Amino acid sequence: MGNEWRSELAAAIERRFGEEVPIPDDLQGGETLVRIARHRSMRRYDGRPVSDELVRLLCAVALSAPSKSDLQQADIVIVRDADKRRTIIEPIADANPWLREAPVLLVICGNNHRQREIHRWRGHVFANDHLDPFFNASVDAGIVLATLIVAAEAAGLGTCSVSAVRNIAADVAKCLDLPSHAFPVAGLALGWPAWEGVLSPRLPLPTTLHVDRHDGTHAREQVDAYDRRRDSLQPYRTQRDPERFGKVELYGWSEDKARQYAVAERADFGTFVRAKGFRLD
Amino acid sequence: MGNEWRSELAAAIERRFGEEVPIPDDLQGGETLVRIARHRSMRRYDGRPVSDELVRLLCAVALSAPSKSDLQQADIVIVRDADKRRTIIEPIADANPWLREAPVLLVICGNNHRQREIHRWRGHVFANDHLDPFFNASVDAGIVLATLIVAAEAAGLGTCSVSAVRNIAADVAKCLDLPSHAFPVAGLALGWPAWEGVLSPRLPLPTTLHVDRHDGTHAREQVDAYDRRRDSLQPYRTQRDPERFGKVELYGWSEDKARQYAVAERADFGTFVRAKGFRLD
Repeated sequence: MGNEWRSELAAAIERRFGEEVPIPDDLQGGETLVRIARHRSMRRYDGRPVSDELVRLLCAVALSAPSKSDLQQADIVIVRDADKRRTIIEPIADANPWLREAPVLLVICGNNHRQREIHRWRGHVFANDHLDPFFNASVDAGIVLATLIVAAEAAGLGTCSVSAVRNIAADVAKCLDLPSHAFPVAGLALGWPAWEGVLSPRLPLPTTLHVDRHDGTHAREQVDAYDRRRDSLQPYRTQRDPERFGKVELYGWSEDKARQYAVAERADFGTFVRAKGFRLD
Repeated sequence: MGNEWRSELAAAIERRFGEEVPIPDDLQGGETLVRIARHRSMRRYDGRPVSDELVRLLCAVALSAPSKSDLQQADIVIVRDADKRRTIIEPIADANPWLREAPVLLVICGNNHRQREIHRWRGHVFANDHLDPFFNASVDAGIVLATLIVAAEAAGLGTCSVSAVRNIAADVAKCLDLPSHAFPVAGLALGWPAWEGVLSPRLPLPTTLHVDRHDGTHAREQVDAYDRRRDSLQPYRTQRDPERFGKVELYGWSEDKARQYAVAERADFGTFVRAKGFRLD
């Protein structure tokens, strides 16, 4: 084995964060790290089918990830039925038309239903009907989602997570027969990549990686620099809703994100979560 | 390269889920999959230091993971300062004494503060003051946590996530100077493993992996069978609080979990999250 991964890892991190990060001489697992560091969302697939066998194996690998207190509060639903796929995809296809071509669609769910059932079966009161169970199940689902992404990319697949399923959470929950206290956290599309994709630059490490204390002193300058760096590598092609927001000279990440969340999204998500039985006190 | 990983992967999955899962003949990335499938929490370290360089590299790799709408709402704090380590570890050391010996302690945080700042800087209203931002930042943190675990294990480290930091969320947030709308999601300990650890059996795949619809028809029998399988592989050494709950013959996973959450935990977590500025409507 060579160690081409060393220069690939250095290059991926430099492109991602705009700085060089030293790589220890005795680093193990470099091939895995380079694959994770080179993650990109993949929305174009080459049309080859992905076998049910492979999907099932990857899901089993992902469900091997750790879970909060060993409670195992994440489920995966593989959506194969054409009607169910349409039910989930069509309402969000305006923003995600590529989803129609995705060979595999999964929905990763948080599931606190099972735990409550266990209390009933074992005759113990469930004494934690507050924010914590929803939070724990959400994080467990995020852990399974991320592990599935790494596993799928290791197997050569492209992945794209689809948080838009949260916009239609009640419909997705109904379509997949999710019981009370279970909810969709994200969709995940899988397929064989049709191109190499784009490695998306990230906020500089001093913004998101801290030692001993969160330090936001220079956050604004860091974000400004990030907007410029990103614009030089991967400029936005259009400006969001110029009729409402006008046009700006440098349309950076921060301008785009501020415009995106200047419009209400998923304001009914809390209502859905409460209707599923959660108290969020 | 041989492909010993094939039998290792089959064995890990069989032990984890109690069933054989077919492995495609043309599977790529088998070495990575076997490492993920063999995940175990590691609480004993061999005393060798973990270099700052390695920790920083692994954090950069983990921060390359996807994030909801590219909002990048997860931060990592590396806790090196001895006083801060004590502040975080001592209140949870009764249940986690091994943490005192962990060479590296990280805290993975959800951070919606930055997004709100960006709105202020760019002059756009933040129109999403409801459950969604807390949920999104929590899931983003879970994604970074899981990616960091896979990356660290690829590098040969042992990992153990520590959700007990949620029990003392306000103290941890204060100790790490977390701003408003930022909160600890989990601690993560890293160190060179002192032993091979224990691969924890998981609920059978028919319980957590579904096709087209969530099917809980046989959940109770599945959990019963899991309790028995787990007891045969990795029995609980003690029964939780027998004075309160009595003694049972088969003390299985479900009995343990039902006892654990029969006692209120983190009932004040919602209060903390709201005090950090979140509305959870």
